[in-house]
Amino acid sequence: MNKEVAEEIGRIVGKGRCSTDIADLYVYGFDASIHHKTPDVVVRPSTVEQISEIVKLANRTLTPVIPRGAGTAMCGHSVPVRGGIILDLTGMNKIKQMRVEDLYCVVEPGVIYDALNAELEKHGFWFPTTPGSAEACTIGGMIATNASGMRAIKYGATRDYVLGLEVVLPTGEVIHTGTRTLKNASGYQLDRLMVGAEGTLGIITEAILRLAVKPKASAMTVAAFNSLVEAGKCVSNIIAKPLLPSAIELMDSVTIKAVNKCMNAGLPDCEAICMIEVDGHPASVEEEMCTVEDICRKSGSISTQASSDKKKISEWTQARKAIMPSLSRYGEKFVSVALADDMSVPISRIPEAVEAFHKIAEENGVIVGTYGHSADGNLHTKMLVEPYSDESWKAGERAVGQIYDKVLELGGTVTGEHGVSITKAPYMQKERHDSLGTMRAIKKALDPNDIMNPGKMFDWQGSIISHLRYPAFLDQPCERNDSCEGS
Amino acid sequence: MNKEVAEEIGRIVGKGRCSTDIADLYVYGFDASIHHKTPDVVVRPSTVEQISEIVKLANRTLTPVIPRGAGTAMCGHSVPVRGGIILDLTGMNKIKQMRVEDLYCVVEPGVIYDALNAELEKHGFWFPTTPGSAEACTIGGMIATNASGMRAIKYGATRDYVLGLEVVLPTGEVIHTGTRTLKNASGYQLDRLMVGAEGTLGIITEAILRLAVKPKASAMTVAAFNSLVEAGKCVSNIIAKPLLPSAIELMDSVTIKAVNKCMNAGLPDCEAICMIEVDGHPASVEEEMCTVEDICRKSGSISTQASSDKKKISEWTQARKAIMPSLSRYGEKFVSVALADDMSVPISRIPEAVEAFHKIAEENGVIVGTYGHSADGNLHTKMLVEPYSDESWKAGERAVGQIYDKVLELGGTVTGEHGVSITKAPYMQKERHDSLGTMRAIKKALDPNDIMNPGKMFDWQGSIISHLRYPAFLDQPCERNDSCEGS
Repeated sequence: MNKEVAEEIGRIVGKGRCSTDIADLYVYGFDASIHHKTPDVVVRPSTVEQISEIVKLANRTLTPVIPRGAGTAMCGHSVPVRGGIILDLTGMNKIKQMRVEDLYCVVEPGVIYDALNAELEKHGFWFPTTPGSAEACTIGGMIATNASGMRAIKYGATRDYVLGLEVVLPTGEVIHTGTRTLKNASGYQLDRLMVGAEGTLGIITEAILRLAVKPKASAMTVAAFNSLVEAGKCVSNIIAKPLLPSAIELMDSVTIKAVNKCMNAGLPDCEAICMIEVDGHPASVEEEMCTVEDICRKSGSISTQASSDKKKISEWTQARKAIMPSLSRYGEKFVSVALADDMSVPISRIPEAVEAFHKIAEENGVIVGTYGHSADGNLHTKMLVEPYSDESWKAGERAVGQIYDKVLELGGTVTGEHGVSITKAPYMQKERHDSLGTMRAIKKALDPNDIMNPGKMFDWQGSIISHLRYPAFLDQPCERNDSCEGS
Repeated sequence: MNKEVAEEIGRIVGKGRCSTDIADLYVYGFDASIHHKTPDVVVRPSTVEQISEIVKLANRTLTPVIPRGAGTAMCGHSVPVRGGIILDLTGMNKIKQMRVEDLYCVVEPGVIYDALNAELEKHGFWFPTTPGSAEACTIGGMIATNASGMRAIKYGATRDYVLGLEVVLPTGEVIHTGTRTLKNASGYQLDRLMVGAEGTLGIITEAILRLAVKPKASAMTVAAFNSLVEAGKCVSNIIAKPLLPSAIELMDSVTIKAVNKCMNAGLPDCEAICMIEVDGHPASVEEEMCTVEDICRKSGSISTQASSDKKKISEWTQARKAIMPSLSRYGEKFVSVALADDMSVPISRIPEAVEAFHKIAEENGVIVGTYGHSADGNLHTKMLVEPYSDESWKAGERAVGQIYDKVLELGGTVTGEHGVSITKAPYMQKERHDSLGTMRAIKKALDPNDIMNPGKMFDWQGSIISHLRYPAFLDQPCERNDSCEGS
């Protein structure tokens, strides 16, 4: 990127909102994935007009633009693989309207999930998708990745809550999709296309979100099993009852051990546990929890421990949330990385899937911790690799390929909620072999110059372990460029 | 269309599945809208392969293709405005998979909504969108129009239930979108783009639908009001409590009178009623109904009559469903037509909207009956016009324009659930002024020859009362063409 472009951006956004300082560029090259690449400039716009001006400039000069929320994405969504402009949207964090009587709110993209819920809860509402990074992640990022979480089984994913969007297209044009009404059938549902497009079709600058009424009560049980397969079967037995829990979190023995060791969580030391949550009217919660525990026992559970005590539920939830950092401290020489981190399979195929993951890990000599939002078939694994060993990375990548083959064979997807970006891109041809052409045609129609978050999703060649932060970050070339420093 | 094309279609689908008989062509020129146009050929394909072959032929010969379900659309969706091939998909009506343990089913496009629900109810599940034409409409048609109905406030629209689709693109290519899992984030959500595309981007040949657990209990009350505005305010008061009913059906005095006259329904003779339904756990239903009736009284209701008796609820529901035919018999010289039939406004703007509709009707000398799924702000009006009077049609069209202007001013949409097609197309430029270009770009990218259901949605010039079945159907030229008769 040439110096003039950075200077022009500085003029658009004003003093202190644009940087080419080497330290800023370096840190903005990361997100929560294994990848790293340094951008050319980092900008913190404050209005849609500024974003539109920047995108027009980028389109004219063929400069990549990468929108960024909190950087909590696991697959490289905000890593600028071809350099360019990082648009940090966290400063645009106003809740612009709270229309509880109309069942919607209007927010800027930088609003944090938990902050929005804190506001909604004052009125008896919530946005229930519950991503793992709830404390940090932004609504814009959640929309861009169609994020969800443990409560998707009952409450759906982000796509189910987006009523309308303001989007800056790759040309710099500003469009408005959807409506402020709960229904609309007026033309193509462009908001639903933008959800999950991972910033490749435009930049979300405002969202109209549907509100949900917060349930009055909830209860949780931790059911222990002597076999991961039995725990998996228990999940479909509950669904087929039919009984819709608000969450079922599965943990295998590797993750249980890690969490107990790091957090002193006191979870049952067994092969697998299911943390099962039900919510709703107190009478319904009580009845459903009885039914759930009965199904657990019939499915082979060795112990259950139901509670509707908020403190107890919170402790269990914290233990569940601690899986990722706990796995990172599993052994001194390992790091826990998001490689095959987010498979989804039809619910009844969970037992087969988890068995296969463990077999594949063993055959490739890597350690895999399996857990996830099993109520909706969403299984996460974290792989423990030795960061400075090429062999370990290659074994990991081999295992990922085999895991994905198995998942697709079972009728699943390589990503349920984290998205594609860099990490999943090499597998898209396999999963989306007959529809990738349609995605490319839409991308080309809306972004003919390929400036929006380029080199991701369906446009990636080679290995997922290129652009690694390990060990690449040690010798990453990063030249100082003073063109808009201090502007 | 030339004779060779029809003959070739006859060869593709086989004997008895293709007709150019004048009677067939004539009846297939109608749907539930005010429009009529005769197609060139009617085909009843039975496989995706046949559809793919037909579309390839159509694309090569630049022949319009119009997919058709039960023909219950109100806006001309399956009326072939440029002639061409009607693809009648009602014969593809198999429920291919019922995976209750995985919370999905797989259906062909011609499956009827009520037939699917009859099957789902055996397992304790349902597909709760509840369109008005539930007994007749097909799942394919519901997906194509993003149909919904009275329960969208609590259960969402069709878009919220589509997990995946098989689609024949305008090139004849067959693609698969989405997954058999409850979540996916693997690339553009093409299924969500196809939902509501009204057959302009491809033909839906299979759908994977998410299942919902059927609530155990429900109750309904009919609250009577001395003013339509008070009834409208009651709706937002309930939502803001917060309390999410499964439905609130609003009826104004014109619709109440029509239904009482035709059905002897015994509804309270007043200015407006709200039929309010709550569902869920029996304990929750009881509590919520108490709260609802309390809010009704505080909002000015003159009487309420709650019941959880299934027979009583069914009678009230039947009375609600009888609005359209009852309005058609309102006065001897009138017909009831779908002109401004499906506005949605933010819930709290209902009072302002209904007041404006009545004022506009009076000023233009037309009679309007207002009713609708007011819980989600979706208001239907039926206009009573004299079918053989040009003046009456023009007054109706003038009123529609004014109603739509008001709806947009209130932050609403010209269509909440019926779709655009012909009837709403002239107003799309106003509602979607900044995003119509994006819709056109996508259409052009996927259907460069404009063969899929052309001349609709964003591609319409002139008046909505052209292509009228009144009085045009009396002198519609319809030449006999024997090219594939009897093949």
